[in-house]
Amino acid sequence: MTKVLIHEVGPRDGLQIEKATVPTETKIAWIEKILESGVDVVQLGSFVNPERVPQMADTEQLFRYFASAERKPSKTALSGLVLNEKGLDRGLGCGVDYVCMGVSASDTHSRKNTGMSTEEALSRIVPMALRAGAAGARVQVSVMSAFGCGFEGPVAFDRVMRIVGRYVEAGLKMISLADTAGHANPAQVEELFTKLRTLAPDVLYACHFHDTYGLGLANAFAAYRVGVESFESAVAGLGGCPFTAVTGGNIATEDLVHMFARMNVRRDVELDPLIDAAKQAEQFLGRPLPGRIHVTGPVPEHELVTV
Amino acid sequence: MTKVLIHEVGPRDGLQIEKATVPTETKIAWIEKILESGVDVVQLGSFVNPERVPQMADTEQLFRYFASAERKPSKTALSGLVLNEKGLDRGLGCGVDYVCMGVSASDTHSRKNTGMSTEEALSRIVPMALRAGAAGARVQVSVMSAFGCGFEGPVAFDRVMRIVGRYVEAGLKMISLADTAGHANPAQVEELFTKLRTLAPDVLYACHFHDTYGLGLANAFAAYRVGVESFESAVAGLGGCPFTAVTGGNIATEDLVHMFARMNVRRDVELDPLIDAAKQAEQFLGRPLPGRIHVTGPVPEHELVTV
Repeated sequence: MTKVLIHEVGPRDGLQIEKATVPTETKIAWIEKILESGVDVVQLGSFVNPERVPQMADTEQLFRYFASAERKPSKTALSGLVLNEKGLDRGLGCGVDYVCMGVSASDTHSRKNTGMSTEEALSRIVPMALRAGAAGARVQVSVMSAFGCGFEGPVAFDRVMRIVGRYVEAGLKMISLADTAGHANPAQVEELFTKLRTLAPDVLYACHFHDTYGLGLANAFAAYRVGVESFESAVAGLGGCPFTAVTGGNIATEDLVHMFARMNVRRDVELDPLIDAAKQAEQFLGRPLPGRIHVTGPVPEHELVTV
Repeated sequence: MTKVLIHEVGPRDGLQIEKATVPTETKIAWIEKILESGVDVVQLGSFVNPERVPQMADTEQLFRYFASAERKPSKTALSGLVLNEKGLDRGLGCGVDYVCMGVSASDTHSRKNTGMSTEEALSRIVPMALRAGAAGARVQVSVMSAFGCGFEGPVAFDRVMRIVGRYVEAGLKMISLADTAGHANPAQVEELFTKLRTLAPDVLYACHFHDTYGLGLANAFAAYRVGVESFESAVAGLGGCPFTAVTGGNIATEDLVHMFARMNVRRDVELDPLIDAAKQAEQFLGRPLPGRIHVTGPVPEHELVTV
């Protein structure tokens, strides 16, 4: 049984595109429910300019709340996304010990997202990642638009590999590939991660899929099959990137956890709190959300046996 | 590039559970749209007792219409499902040359469906299949509930293998495994078809997945990866019970065709008519249906390139 890690990104990637700001107390109750499931990492927010993304303005507050000595979860790490030096300062300042950051493999997407080319963004991100590591944090670096770009279409493998190569050279060993636009297909996922594993074997690979075209779980399965160890998802299939063309939500955490439970890969992440959290999100956002298992309900235990 | 076959079962498996009977003229216009796509097989209906399933009462009429000399599609075979000797007589009587039939690997499901145990059902189906073959038809035999049963839970591999063994002994070489309840997971799909291929190699294997828990495309990808050649699906993800929270529709044909197009496995099945057909189905059934691509729209050609 290969161990897989579940990284819940709903409070960040799920909410950042929502127009209506979710009150901090609502977020806290929701994140508490998510934590009950025992997922491995929860991304509480993003240290982005609060004027640009008001939804993320309470990220420090959430970290101070959940990372406090009396509340710090025993099973779950708390991650935060940083986009620049200032965000990293803010993150380290409130005790974030799991820092995520990345660059886009698509120049167009990179420029729209950050005003910088991929190369320029990389030359800033690598030193930031090293600084975060030197400060004692675990660091995950990512390649956005790794499987295709809403603006450019296909993204050449060499562009992805150049970024991964730079990360590995710098000693960064937790690397996530993000399908920002939801263009990935499972054959491509297998091929891309297989090539990366050959060229850069000593890495903990993570994946981040959006379900724009309904291929999210097929892509996650393909990634699992070729040894990807960490899976980013958002309860209820929340999300979408505000700075790219057409996207769907993230893969739904409860659907991913259900798949791995059925596959007998991992059964210690609890579905019920994730289902409750998905329903909470439907309530505070006021609309049905795309995940499946929070609608079908938890699966009878007697079904959970594989051949 | 491995060739895969697409077998549209919407007019049968998609409609058979619908309470409101779809008028024959509506079905004809809909099936004509589906045929425009160039899928390999369309299942027009089921030769079941019309008093029991009024929705299928026009199956002969549909065959006489579409199999007529002037209308017979050049690219697409027309299949029909038969459940018993009488149904086979009716099918052969109206010129069906692609006959589907099957038994359930779950005794409970078999008894509820047919009043017979798996063994009794098998002892009737095998001679029927041979008679259909002797009459010149192509014959596909299936194993229902092959991946799990809504009543019994897990179904032992030996039960599936015994049925497949009997089919193969009888010289039947087109064999479909159906995930009737939607319990399959992709690891199980890989394992089951891999074992079957070892024990009964000289078979064209087909698969039939329901998307109850959102794993339909992941299962289809897993089946493809281990050499399954034929894929049954229904436009718009029709099927299952529309009156419960648990949506157990078939995998959506347009989503499956889109996946194979993105994977560069097959691009000659046209998405646009399938999207139109899915929208037609939403109109004549009067509710949104679960497929994805008929909502997102066709994919820009420039995205359709794999690594």
